[in-house]
Amino acid sequence: MKRVYLAGPEVFWPDARGALRRKSEITRQFGFDPAPPGDVQVPPGLDAHARGLHIGRENEKTMDGADFIIANLTPFRGPSADVGTAYEVGYMRGQGKKVFAYSDDARPYFVRLTEGYYAGAAQPDAAGGLRGPDGLRLEDHGMHDNLMLDTAALAGGGAFVALDGAPGEFAAFRACLAAAREWWAGR
Amino acid sequence: MKRVYLAGPEVFWPDARGALRRKSEITRQFGFDPAPPGDVQVPPGLDAHARGLHIGRENEKTMDGADFIIANLTPFRGPSADVGTAYEVGYMRGQGKKVFAYSDDARPYFVRLTEGYYAGAAQPDAAGGLRGPDGLRLEDHGMHDNLMLDTAALAGGGAFVALDGAPGEFAAFRACLAAAREWWAGR
Repeated sequence: MKRVYLAGPEVFWPDARGALRRKSEITRQFGFDPAPPGDVQVPPGLDAHARGLHIGRENEKTMDGADFIIANLTPFRGPSADVGTAYEVGYMRGQGKKVFAYSDDARPYFVRLTEGYYAGAAQPDAAGGLRGPDGLRLEDHGMHDNLMLDTAALAGGGAFVALDGAPGEFAAFRACLAAAREWWAGR
Repeated sequence: MKRVYLAGPEVFWPDARGALRRKSEITRQFGFDPAPPGDVQVPPGLDAHARGLHIGRENEKTMDGADFIIANLTPFRGPSADVGTAYEVGYMRGQGKKVFAYSDDARPYFVRLTEGYYAGAAQPDAAGGLRGPDGLRLEDHGMHDNLMLDTAALAGGGAFVALDGAPGEFAAFRACLAAAREWWAGR
C-alpha cells in the first residue's frame, strides 16, 4: 500500500485534528496509507522555538517515509497557497516523488491577483504585462498558482485539481485521490 | 567554486534583470558561482501555460545543478514569503542541500500576523493560542515564517537572517552570503 503525505494548512483550522482524521479516513477509502503532518509527540521542556523545529523535523521525516504527496494549495491568508505546504511540495518533488495538488478555489491565480489582491488596480506596463501599484509583475500563465507549484504537479505527471467547494467537504481532495489511484494503478 | 541558486521574488520586481544581475555580482564577490532563476530561453510558439511549465522545469534543472540555495523569504503579497521561493527551498532541502534564507523584514512572523494581517483582531482560543476572525490559528514559535521554512534553514545547519532594509540594498542577502562563506570554509 502506498503511503501519501497529506500536506495542507488544516493544522491551522478550528478543528485541526478532526479535519486531519477525516482526510485520513477518506485516504484509506481510496486504498492509500495516510501520513498527516503535525502528528508529532513533542518532548516536554522545549521552548516555543525548539518545539517548532522539532515539529518541522518530524514532518520532514514523515515525508521521507511517504511515497507521494497530496497537497492542499487552496489560497491561504492571501492570493497564494500556504508557504509551509509549498515547501513540502518542493521537498517531495526534490526527492523525485509524485505530486498531486488541489485547491478549493477554482479561480485562476491571475484572476485572484487582478480581481482579488489588487482589486482592479493593476495596470499595463511597458512590456505588455500587468503590474500592481506596488510595482510587482503579475504572473499570467493560466495556472492555479505560482508556476513552480503547477510545474511540480504537471511536469511530474501528477495533477492539479481546482474545484470551488467548502473546505470541509474535501471534493477537490477526493478528485485528487481518484487521480492518484488511477496513476498508481497504471504503474 | 560552489554554485548557489538565488531563489526569490526578484523576478517580479520592476527591474527584475537588474536586480538579479546585481545579486549575481554580489554573489561572485563572496566567492560563489551565482545561479539565478528565470534565466531561461523559452522556445517560440508556446502558449502561456506551456511557457510557464518550461520555465518551471528549467528552474528545477538549475537547482539540480546548484550546491546550495540562498532564498529571499521577505514577505510577498501577504504575511509570508513567496510560495515559489518556498517551493524551491523545499526542493533543495529534499535533495539534502544546504539552505540559507533571508528577509528584508525583521519582524517575527507572529508580529506580522497579529499586528499586520489580522490588525489586532486575533483573539485567544480555548487552547490558549490565538485565532483570527477567520478561525485560523496563529503560529507562535518565535520564527521568521512558517516553521517549515525556519526548520529548513536551521535544522540543516544553515541560517535565516532577517534585517530591516530596502530590498535593493541587499543587506540581509550579504549577511547570508557571509554566513554561507563561513560554513563552506569550515568544510
